[in-house]
Amino acid sequence: MNQFLHLVTLGVRDFKKSYEFYTQTLGWKPSGASQDDVAFFQTSGVVFAIYPREKLAEDALVESEGSGFAGFTLAHNARSEAEVDEIIADLKSKGVKIVKEPQKVFWGGYSSYFADLDGYLWEVAFNPFFPFDKNGNLKLE
Amino acid sequence: MNQFLHLVTLGVRDFKKSYEFYTQTLGWKPSGASQDDVAFFQTSGVVFAIYPREKLAEDALVESEGSGFAGFTLAHNARSEAEVDEIIADLKSKGVKIVKEPQKVFWGGYSSYFADLDGYLWEVAFNPFFPFDKNGNLKLE
Repeated sequence: MNQFLHLVTLGVRDFKKSYEFYTQTLGWKPSGASQDDVAFFQTSGVVFAIYPREKLAEDALVESEGSGFAGFTLAHNARSEAEVDEIIADLKSKGVKIVKEPQKVFWGGYSSYFADLDGYLWEVAFNPFFPFDKNGNLKLE
Repeated sequence: MNQFLHLVTLGVRDFKKSYEFYTQTLGWKPSGASQDDVAFFQTSGVVFAIYPREKLAEDALVESEGSGFAGFTLAHNARSEAEVDEIIADLKSKGVKIVKEPQKVFWGGYSSYFADLDGYLWEVAFNPFFPFDKNGNLKLE
């Protein structure tokens, strides 16, 4: 399987509210490929999607029950520490749960976390060691 | 926060074994930015990473305990049904757990799932409605 991750899908407990969270609170624009119970968002080089949790589990033929830490994080990289602060301040003003306030971290960057409505964790970070390419994606060697 | 997902990190219970899974079983090439306990993989437009589960939770200031369905899936899109079959057959021959055998699915595509060592779900799918761009990423309108 060649080295491509094309799509990341979160199984959400309340699709309508999560749809509002991503489209209104975060302000992301859904793709026209979205349908009644699935929303796709073209983000950098990967497609991000939300889909009802039960249906996502059913699609994979697994049980939908689960609790505690989901075991993964998604990251949005900012261009500076100030941009991290701005993003988190904006989200906080919209009532988003900030899990970790922006702060300098051991690996030399500046990082924060917020939670979406299901508690999935988004890191908002400035990493001075990770360059962007011309499309705004990270480009590691 | 503009519409960018830059990095997806999985918290893995056995870093060394997961590193072998992604580098040897899947055959992915780690970035030179990888370190002793974190591996980065440049994939299409997004960076995929593995990191010890406990440390990932600690970084986000959350408890690391969790069980059941993690609530998300990652997808690798193939160019044809035959390519899905080939990928899954190859992984199966390497002892990878196939959670859903390749099959036609209700939305008009062809899909399968395998699990990594932590049970995180990868879908391998052919979606005739989702075009690729010249870089091999999905490109939705």
